[in-house]
Amino acid sequence: MRAEIIAVGTELLLGQIVNTNAQYLSRGLAELGIDVYYQTVVGDNKRRLIEAIGIAKGRADLLVFTGGLGPTQDDLTRDALAEFLGRGISLHEPTMDKIMKLFADRGSALIESNRRQALLIEGATPLRNDMGLAVGNALSADGISYLLLPGPPREMKPMFNNDGSAWLRERLGAANSLHSVMLKFAGIGESMLEDLLLDLIQAQQDPTIAPYAKEGEVAVRVSTKAVDAEEAARKLEATLTEIRIRTKAFLYAEEDVPIEATVVRLLTERQLTLTLAESCTGGMVSELVTTIPGSAVVYRGGIVSYSNEVKMRQLGVPQELLEGEGAPGAISAETAQAMAEGVRAAMDADFALSVTGNAGPAAAEDKPVGLVYVGLAERGRETRVEKLQLSGDREGIRLRATKRALYMLWQSLSGQLGG
Amino acid sequence: MRAEIIAVGTELLLGQIVNTNAQYLSRGLAELGIDVYYQTVVGDNKRRLIEAIGIAKGRADLLVFTGGLGPTQDDLTRDALAEFLGRGISLHEPTMDKIMKLFADRGSALIESNRRQALLIEGATPLRNDMGLAVGNALSADGISYLLLPGPPREMKPMFNNDGSAWLRERLGAANSLHSVMLKFAGIGESMLEDLLLDLIQAQQDPTIAPYAKEGEVAVRVSTKAVDAEEAARKLEATLTEIRIRTKAFLYAEEDVPIEATVVRLLTERQLTLTLAESCTGGMVSELVTTIPGSAVVYRGGIVSYSNEVKMRQLGVPQELLEGEGAPGAISAETAQAMAEGVRAAMDADFALSVTGNAGPAAAEDKPVGLVYVGLAERGRETRVEKLQLSGDREGIRLRATKRALYMLWQSLSGQLGG
Repeated sequence: MRAEIIAVGTELLLGQIVNTNAQYLSRGLAELGIDVYYQTVVGDNKRRLIEAIGIAKGRADLLVFTGGLGPTQDDLTRDALAEFLGRGISLHEPTMDKIMKLFADRGSALIESNRRQALLIEGATPLRNDMGLAVGNALSADGISYLLLPGPPREMKPMFNNDGSAWLRERLGAANSLHSVMLKFAGIGESMLEDLLLDLIQAQQDPTIAPYAKEGEVAVRVSTKAVDAEEAARKLEATLTEIRIRTKAFLYAEEDVPIEATVVRLLTERQLTLTLAESCTGGMVSELVTTIPGSAVVYRGGIVSYSNEVKMRQLGVPQELLEGEGAPGAISAETAQAMAEGVRAAMDADFALSVTGNAGPAAAEDKPVGLVYVGLAERGRETRVEKLQLSGDREGIRLRATKRALYMLWQSLSGQLGG
Repeated sequence: MRAEIIAVGTELLLGQIVNTNAQYLSRGLAELGIDVYYQTVVGDNKRRLIEAIGIAKGRADLLVFTGGLGPTQDDLTRDALAEFLGRGISLHEPTMDKIMKLFADRGSALIESNRRQALLIEGATPLRNDMGLAVGNALSADGISYLLLPGPPREMKPMFNNDGSAWLRERLGAANSLHSVMLKFAGIGESMLEDLLLDLIQAQQDPTIAPYAKEGEVAVRVSTKAVDAEEAARKLEATLTEIRIRTKAFLYAEEDVPIEATVVRLLTERQLTLTLAESCTGGMVSELVTTIPGSAVVYRGGIVSYSNEVKMRQLGVPQELLEGEGAPGAISAETAQAMAEGVRAAMDADFALSVTGNAGPAAAEDKPVGLVYVGLAERGRETRVEKLQLSGDREGIRLRATKRALYMLWQSLSGQLGG
């Protein structure tokens, strides 16, 4: 089944709201094994909406609408589809009763326009709205299925998950649904990862292999259609094994979690503690680590050393590293090492990460934008420092430095060092 | 000019990411006075992309693409449009030089696929990419204009705002364009702000008044169409003045900047310094402050005290506040005060903010989720502590606590205290 999502609303075209409904429905349809080929946004204009329906009917066999079921004259989705299909519209009595009751309970007279929310296209199945008044519509015509959902997410989501999904499952029969595994990587860029997997990606059929890059993270989704999880696991195994072998040094999770979640989990399992000393990242490593619930068990705290005095006073970085003729300066491997060792001692933790560098926008200490040193101090082991030359804007550099620091810690925790 | 936005990417159709680019571009085009009639999302599939271009060409005279300019085999937008228009593709030398230089600087060999990012459709104007490698394309053919922008928002936004908008303005001529002023508020919620301005919003004609809410921030955009900035200022003045009078205690900026930017600016102007002690926000205040270029001049650094030992040892919070029968505990006004005063003394700064609370997901110290104390210690003044009961998930609570702390500092810096 090929689907198109049609979101109706001028506020989307004006950029007043972001189309989170399309994302939610795309994900929900994928879980049902339905491929979404297009998402369309059209304004509150009947002629243009009817044209959009005509186009969608030519390239999809399921049209999922969201928006335009409300009480106002601008809410046109039902009217437009009825006109397109040449069908009538009638009142859905249970919904009308609910609307009347609501107004009675409020002690106010019915506002006539609210009747519109109880309308059903001829032949449509009503979809219950637990969070609002507008009834949903589901119908089939000429082999095409139509699902009409409200626009407000808090009404749309439960309607889709309950009556909407049930209606779709009936139409799908016992068909296969999509199963996928998300592989998450750190310490490697998108193009380098793709190089490692290029022949697999080019030869892919079933399972499919899709790489994704977000800021500072890379992921690969391996998917197949199967009747159940067991069959899916069998179909995915060979591909997953091959990818695991090739990417072992970078593959930190087989689910969609950020690296800070994996690091906190590994520290927790081993009852080890972490502390942080940050300069150019300004607290971003700390902020990401503490997004993880339960991080308080392993994370003792950290120091943001944005000035040399704090580096010296709070972290014990020797003055001669920071100041004076020929000193390496704050942005140096020596300082990264001293910061990591200093904070580990001050906070008495098993691990300490440090980050110092120039995130831009201008050169500092004559060091170029993007030059960053990341240090890892570890109880009973030698401190490691990595030199990075990162590209991008200030936020991009800070984020990549943060993820790289977490990757160093993951390497150590997962025994991936020495590669 | 009627526009259609075409976002290209299978990750959008799978619901892995939300199409924030469409919103951003819709808003930007509206500001240029260009009406967006449709938004379309299509996957990384050349045939379907070409079909989508054909449809869009029939109903719009500006097609704005985002996505599909990257280095991989899946990045097809340029190829698809060139094929649709029957045009060739050639290498844009300055971009290729930039790519080569980047790899040379990194000391690594060129990854061949990166060449693709330097490709221009025959006759296209290159659009500079300050944040990444892929060059943008702008061209006109048969009376239709095409703008090709990258998918990653941090690359797309500046390219659209700079070269993209300039190219569009040329095409638009000297028409009336939209001028607007963004008013930014802190310390007040969206509905309360709307209450303050309700009659103005309801009676609005020209200028228009549009409120926006993001997590932890509220904004109002006041807009009018005018031939130049001078005429716009004249038309906007009365409305702006009225809003200023009503919202003085919350209005921290008249441009679209976050409150941390205003705070860093005020500190810089007055040569005052700041330090931070964070518990539940885990470094988020520090992270936001240091997103601002130049913050190093005023921000000395901070301490993330995620454990009681760090609160005692690094911040000098008395043990009897934290531990023992009847102690107020880490989540208390007393601890917030001690944290702020402790870090101010340790770092010798003019101001110190502290945040301690429970961001969830579970109760801590028998304190409910969302209970947060924010402290402000100031050289030569009494320390203030505010008690907040915030709603939302962990990230929402942390963000609102962070913004509230920055608001306290802004109040003090801007003389808005004593209200």
